[in-house]
Formats: sequence, C-alpha cells, structure tokens
Amino acid sequence: MRTALALAARGLGNTWPNPAVGCVIVTRGSDAGRIVGRGWTQPGGRPHAERRALDQAGAVARGATAYVTLEPCAHHGHTPPCAEGLIAAGVARVVSALTDPDPRVGGRGHAMLRAAGIEVVEQVMAAEARALNAGFLKRVEQGLPFVTLKLASTLDGRIATHSGESRWITGPAARRAVHAMRLAHDAVLVGSGTARADDPDLTVRDMGAVRQPVRIVIDSRLSHALDSRLGRTAGQHPVWLVHTDAAPLAARQGWSATGARLIAVPSDGGHVDLRAAMQALAAEGLTRIFCEGGADLAAGLIRAGLVDELAQFSAGALIGAEGRAALGPLGCAALADAPRLTLLSATPVGADVLTRWSFPG
Amino acid sequence: MRTALALAARGLGNTWPNPAVGCVIVTRGSDAGRIVGRGWTQPGGRPHAERRALDQAGAVARGATAYVTLEPCAHHGHTPPCAEGLIAAGVARVVSALTDPDPRVGGRGHAMLRAAGIEVVEQVMAAEARALNAGFLKRVEQGLPFVTLKLASTLDGRIATHSGESRWITGPAARRAVHAMRLAHDAVLVGSGTARADDPDLTVRDMGAVRQPVRIVIDSRLSHALDSRLGRTAGQHPVWLVHTDAAPLAARQGWSATGARLIAVPSDGGHVDLRAAMQALAAEGLTRIFCEGGADLAAGLIRAGLVDELAQFSAGALIGAEGRAALGPLGCAALADAPRLTLLSATPVGADVLTRWSFPG
Ligand SMILES: NC(=O)c1ccc[n+]([C@@H]2O[C@H](COP(=O)([O-])OP(=O)(O)OC[C@H]3O[C@@H](n4cnc5c(N)ncnc54)[C@H](OP(=O)(O)O)[C@@H]3O)[C@@H](O)[C@H]2O)c1
Ligand SMILES: NC(=O)c1ccc[n+]([C@@H]2O[C@H](COP(=O)([O-])OP(=O)(O)OC[C@H]3O[C@@H](n4cnc5c(N)ncnc54)[C@H](OP(=O)(O)O)[C@@H]3O)[C@@H](O)[C@H]2O)c1
Repeated sequence: MRTALALAARGLGNTWPNPAVGCVIVTRGSDAGRIVGRGWTQPGGRPHAERRALDQAGAVARGATAYVTLEPCAHHGHTPPCAEGLIAAGVARVVSALTDPDPRVGGRGHAMLRAAGIEVVEQVMAAEARALNAGFLKRVEQGLPFVTLKLASTLDGRIATHSGESRWITGPAARRAVHAMRLAHDAVLVGSGTARADDPDLTVRDMGAVRQPVRIVIDSRLSHALDSRLGRTAGQHPVWLVHTDAAPLAARQGWSATGARLIAVPSDGGHVDLRAAMQALAAEGLTRIFCEGGADLAAGLIRAGLVDELAQFSAGALIGAEGRAALGPLGCAALADAPRLTLLSATPVGADVLTRWSFPG
Repeated sequence: MRTALALAARGLGNTWPNPAVGCVIVTRGSDAGRIVGRGWTQPGGRPHAERRALDQAGAVARGATAYVTLEPCAHHGHTPPCAEGLIAAGVARVVSALTDPDPRVGGRGHAMLRAAGIEVVEQVMAAEARALNAGFLKRVEQGLPFVTLKLASTLDGRIATHSGESRWITGPAARRAVHAMRLAHDAVLVGSGTARADDPDLTVRDMGAVRQPVRIVIDSRLSHALDSRLGRTAGQHPVWLVHTDAAPLAARQGWSATGARLIAVPSDGGHVDLRAAMQALAAEGLTRIFCEGGADLAAGLIRAGLVDELAQFSAGALIGAEGRAALGPLGCAALADAPRLTLLSATPVGADVLTRWSFPG
C-alpha cells in the first residue's frame, strides 16, 4: 500500500477533477510477493490506475492481490468501471485504503468486487490515503478545494524591503521547490496586488510538466493589465480570473479575448467573497490550490478559514521592521484568537528552511 | 577528542572568564583504548579539566594519551599549570585541539610538554573546538563577547498582539529549551523595554543550575523599577545594569543598594553605545551572552554587527500585520544590505521549530 500511495502521489495536480489513485498488483501463492503491475491515474484523470496496473500485469493478474489507494469505481463514465476490470482479470484479493465518497461509487465498488467472490480488505493506511486525497475529498465532501498557502519570508517575517524589493529573498533551491509544489497542485493562485507588482508568469519551468496548473488571479475589478505576462499567455495555458460585478465591461471583453476564463462571484465589502470564490473554483473541478500570496489575499483566506496547509520558506536574512510584512491583518484582538497550526515537517532546502504546517479542522 | 569536546560543552556558561575545557585520558600499549580519566572545567573555572581527569586516572595515567580541547596552561595562576601536571603524571602523548590565544599561554603549554619529552599532536578537530570556544576566543581576540540572539515569534514574525499580549506564543518545550540555553551562557541580556513590559526574573529554573547566569539590562537611564523582580532578587543572583551618564543619581544609589552592579558606558544618540557596552561586559569577564530581546535591542545589536548567532523559535501560530514585530528597524534600504545568515540546524521542539543561524564574519 505504501508503494501504491507513492505512485498515487505522482498524479497530484494532473488528475483533477478526478482523484490521484495508485494501484499495485502483487502475486500470491507459490510465487508470492512479486510486483507485476503498477499504475497511477494518468494526466486528465484517465486511464485509471487499476487499468494501467492490470494492463501491465496481463495474465499474471489472475489470482493476484491488487492494492488500491481508493475504492475502485463502479460506474460507467468515460471508461468502464475499474471494479469490472479487476473482476475480469481474475484478481483474488483487493486491499483498499478508502471508500470513495463520490455518490456514484460510495461503497458500490467494494460491493461489486465482493459479489464476484473477491476478498476485499478495506481501510488499510486510511489516514495516509486521506491525507493524499485531501483535495479530492474536500471537494466532494465540502464543495471546497484544499488550499496550500506558501509564504516565503525572512526570519523576521518580511517579504520585501520598504521600497518593495523582493528579488530574491529565498535561494534557487527554494524557488525550484516552489515550482515542484505548483506542479503537484491543480492551480496556482495570487491576489491582484501581487499580479500588478510582480507581473508573474506562474508557469512551471524546467520540470518536464505534462500539464500546467491553472493560473488564477483574485481580481475584483479585472484591473490586471491585458498586456501582462498572464494576459499574453492566456491562450497557451489556462488563466482564470475571479472577479465581482464591479469589473467593467471593457475589461471583461478584453480578458475574454485573451482566452482567459472569467469567473464572476458575489462581492463582500467591495472585494471578491473568498468563500464564494473557492466554492466556484471547486465547482469548476479544482481540488488542490496553491496560493502564493500576497499578504492581503493570504490574510483574507486565513480569516475566512479557507487555508488547509501552510508551506513556509524561511530565508536566512533579516530586513527589519521597515520591511513589508508577509501577512496582512488578521484581526486577532487576543492571542487566543490567533490560528494555531500543527507542524508537519521541517527541512532545509538549500540555504533556506521549509516548514510545513496544517491548519486546524 | 569528540568525547573531550562533549565534556567541555558541559562547562559552557559556568567557567567564565575561563574557557570550558574537556580532557580524556586513554591508555596505550597492551591495554590500549581504555578511558581512565575524564574531566571538564568546573564551575568558576577551577579545577581545570586536566587536573580532574588526571586525578581520576591516578597511576594509570603513566604512559597514557591525554586528549585536551585546548592547549594546557603553562602559567602559575590560582592553580599550578596543567602542563606540569601532565608531565608529573607521566603521560606519554598529548593530543590537543587548539593553541590557547591567552598571551600567558600562546604555545608555551605545548612547548613545555615537548621539552619534557611528551609527544604532542596539535589542531585535532580544531574547527569544532573553535566553535565550542567561540566566546572565550572572541573575548581574548576581539575584546567582545559571543552574542546569541533569541527570537521567539509566530510564523509571520510577530512577538505579541497589537495590545502587547505575548504569553504564550511558544510552547512549554521551547520555553524549557530557552532555560537550557540560558544555562549554557554566562549572562542573559534584555532591553529596558522588555524589562519594563515583562518584569522578567531571567533565572534558570528547574534545571539544577549550579550557577545562575548574570542578568543584564541595557537601561540608559536606569529606569527599571527597583521593586521589580530583578530589583528584589539582585542580592541573591547577579544583576548588572548598563547605563549612560543620563542615569539620575537617585536611581544609581537605589540600584546599588539592591546589590546590582552598575556599568556606565558612553552614550550614542541618547542610548547606550552598544559596542562600548559589549566591550565593557567582556572586560568584566563575560564570554557568552544570550540576548532575549526585545525588538529594539535586537535590532540595535544587529545593526552594530555584535550578534554572532540567531536562535529562532517559530511557533505554529499567525497573528497578522497588526501584531508587534519581532525585530525593530534595521535601516536596510536595499535587499543587498540585509544581513544574510547561514543555517546551522533546524529541529522541532515540542510544537515549535528551532532554527539556528550564524551571522557572517
Ligand atoms: N515573497 C513572497 O513570497 C511574495 C509572494 C507574493 C507577493 N509578494 C509581494 O506582495 C506584494 C503584494 O501583496 P498585497 O498584499 O499588496 O496584494 P495581494 O494580496 O496580492 O492582493 C490583494 C488581494 O487581496 C484581495 N483582498 C483584499 N482585501 C480583501 C478582503 N477584505 N476580502 C477579500 N479579498 C481581499 C484583493 O482583491 P481585490 O481584487 O478585490 O482588490 C486582492 O486579490 C507585492 O509587493 C509582491 O511582490 C511576495
Ligand atoms: N516573544 C519574545 O520572545 C519576546 C522577547 C523579548 C521581548 N518581548 C516583548 O518585546 C517588547 C519590548 O521590546 P522593545 O523593542 O519595546 O524593547 P527592548 O528592545 O527590550 O528595549 C529597547 C532597548 O533598546 C535600546 N535601544 C533603543 N534604541 C537604541 C539605539 N538606537 N541604540 C542603542 N540602543 C537602543 C534601549 O535602550 P535605552 O535604555 O537607552 O532606551 C533599550 O535597552 C515587550 O512587549 C516584550 O514583551 C518579546
């Protein structure tokens, strides 16, 4: 199952709106323990992991055990159900980590296998599988995407000097790690302030990306310039702009013409209602969003309880109190109001340190 | 030598103005490799490590090898020179990590051993020994103490809410680690703002401390209240106050009466000249100072280039931009002016993370 989970992780960022699943087929009987098939969900969500692993195993799948990180599907979609594929291949035993919360599956995959006389073991490494599928599960269960917030700051929590100079605070290894993180998410998100200040491109470079993450800007008034990097490249890789009805018609028409997708959501005090924005993005199929700032968007998402994980890059530098803060106002009157995070990992990355933290609930 | 260095480390904070030295005596010949004596500099700096190890080894020291983390002393001080002790005990070989920069020694210990026919191997694990003795060496070589700055902040670099609430940001394990760090330093240092805001005690509790670190406040005008915790306990454990000639006579008299030591230094723009302050503290014998803030004193020390190491405790919490910054203004106009630090270690401590960084030069 550990191997199957590692295979599944290869699909993260590439399979939305489908889950990233891993499957390993292992022989039993006299020749027991040999891995004869490995599969993971392919870009775009198809073929499924089980199909790939079964094709690799061929006839040897007969009588074998299949380890799957998520219950095999039971419904006819674009592909025949994986449960049927496992039955047809003659596997004797299926070990699965999670029941699929998708209402079209919801236990029916496991039931179909059992009905065909296959032994089914459920909930193996379920916690790990839940963590891996956090985006898919959150979308199905709550209609929201899993949001990872990246902050990259000096040791005193600054992201730029007083004058706005911010290149570079972290080193090349951290910047490369950020690109790898973008690739493991369905979409990269920034605020309109960052779009304006940095004119970012937000693509993944030098990593052999098979699919670029969707590039999203929260931009109530569609104020971002059409001749920005995002505007010029919206025809090649997806750009989505989330705006309110405050966006002027000319900006809507101009951005539509670039090939960008416009997503209109209600406003909340003059800005995009961030919960509504996340719901709309989940409705579009996104399961994992990587937010790269700026300070105000990050604070807004945290205040609204929409952030699941924090990836904090700390650079060995000090800017001092005149510098720009990594995070905007949170409105914490008392320390008891401050969000408390749980440490997931602490790792040096080049000259910097990456700590990962999870938000409560 | 690794063992000798580990023994030496036990003395840090307890031996000033003397260095913390470790010594291990190991048999040679037929019964080779047995450790027969271990010693480290005792509280207050005496007995020396070599004396302790030789006493433990007794007659078995004859023909043995002595590993010492610093050149044995050659001068008659409060104790007979250790070089003489090693000769008298009949050790055959001395392996040493560093030449003592103290002008009263400066190679004469090694020479005395060689003159007695002892084989001397020098500079073994010299880099590790230099790091361990950084405080002693900096004091002898530059007339300044080694300064470790502690910052304990949220992930967004805040040390308190807008209203000043700061208890507790880090957890009990981190606070305990801070007490252990105090114990490994000769003195603990805070600014007058922190003294006023927190009324700290600055002693080491629940750790079996044999010697309390000196408690120092940088307080130009001697404004700290006489009936503060420091004022009330100055008779029991040392309290030193560094001030300028702006301190009123009444405050000087009042503080002197508590048992505190007053150290007058020149002023620089109305505040204590921090370089002069550090020079005065080194002249008093201090080799290792642990500065616990606040934000302005930390920034002042950094601006003056007086900080050697940063111990950063990051708590899994976010306060937001309204919170109080961990570090005051540094006057960095450009990112190129920001001090760049080198990562020494990154370790989870309870629910928090401790990263240690060294300043350049
Ligand atoms: N070092 C780093 O890691 C890093 C990363 C990113 C950015 N930066 C720097 O950060 C700066 C930009 O940060 P910023 O804080 O000015 O801009 P920002 O966070 O990128 O943009 C502000 C965003 O927050 C939204 N917003 C503001 N108030 C809101 C509210 N009450 N409710 C909901 N949404 C709200 C705005 O929406 P509207 O469209 O409605 O205004 C906008 O999308 C730049 O200088 C950039 O270089 C550094
Ligand atoms: N969470 C934590 O780890 C932590 C740790 C410590 C403190 N704190 C909090 O930090 C706050 C206190 O911090 P603070 O920044 O107000 O005070 P502070 O740094 O403790 O005190 C200011 C110090 O800096 C000196 N100073 C100011 N400007 C200077 C200059 N230009 N040159 C040389 N020295 C200068 C002052 O000397 P003068 O005597 O001449 O004014 C004073 O000693 C409190 O709220 C405390 O709770 C939190």
